[in-house]
Amino acid sequence: MTEPSPFRPELIRPFLESTLNVLRTMALIEARPGKPFLRGDSRSEGDVSGIIGMAGRKVSGSMALVFPAPTILQIVSAMLGEEFKEINQDVLDCVGELTNMISGNARAGLAKLNLQFEMALPTMVRGTHHCVEHQSKGPVVCVPFELESGTFYVEAAFRIVS
Amino acid sequence: MTEPSPFRPELIRPFLESTLNVLRTMALIEARPGKPFLRGDSRSEGDVSGIIGMAGRKVSGSMALVFPAPTILQIVSAMLGEEFKEINQDVLDCVGELTNMISGNARAGLAKLNLQFEMALPTMVRGTHHCVEHQSKGPVVCVPFELESGTFYVEAAFRIVS
Repeated sequence: MTEPSPFRPELIRPFLESTLNVLRTMALIEARPGKPFLRGDSRSEGDVSGIIGMAGRKVSGSMALVFPAPTILQIVSAMLGEEFKEINQDVLDCVGELTNMISGNARAGLAKLNLQFEMALPTMVRGTHHCVEHQSKGPVVCVPFELESGTFYVEAAFRIVS
Repeated sequence: MTEPSPFRPELIRPFLESTLNVLRTMALIEARPGKPFLRGDSRSEGDVSGIIGMAGRKVSGSMALVFPAPTILQIVSAMLGEEFKEINQDVLDCVGELTNMISGNARAGLAKLNLQFEMALPTMVRGTHHCVEHQSKGPVVCVPFELESGTFYVEAAFRIVS
């Protein structure tokens, strides 16, 4: 058995920067990142989530984007240039693309820290007020991002075998 | 751009057998598998799901176990030898373990088909009547499993680069 290593705060930066960059590029939105925190017993609730697995020989983990409905409707309306008022297939497709782009971008940053891994396919979850739980013996880091329409969350969990 | 290959039915068998074996071994439950089907527009609803990513150089994908509450409560009660009446942290931990075991077992079967990949960490979702959507240009295969308490679903989506 290999014990998971303690959390390394520098691992969250690639996710934070990637989220800002992708929203800026794809939706012309300037999100305001809050202070990252270690998730304890509290759970972020969302109405739509994008989840993706990261798997390599030395690292495995999962990332989730957790969106209350108003936040993802704001983002998708800006991305596609028309107003979306409900969560439909177009919105779910955008969540998948955002999950791919944000994790893919972060992957490049993590590679510089010598953490190589492959990406799985994203999975989207739709359901009022659901919570995402990561299975990680190590910590789960959560970064809140504020928009006009509310706050959404980027969560990452890692297990590193050194 | 590489086009995804069409669905290969033999890819679902490792998941089917693995689910039966894990439930038999861990919970002494004989689940009755229904006919696998390609998921179209219909969505399986669950109250708890376990999701895991699979990532390799030639294959990427995701697997989800989608449980209505009565089915996972039956399974966890049998696994842990005491009656569970609500979805709590113990139940979520069991969902994570089941997701690990079923996908890990299936991985061994898929390796015999020359599909090697690493596993990500599982992610669990809790929320009444949520749906899981896989991002796959290829088909999403769903296998229903019947228990006394209801029907749960194992879903798998793959993208294979040949």
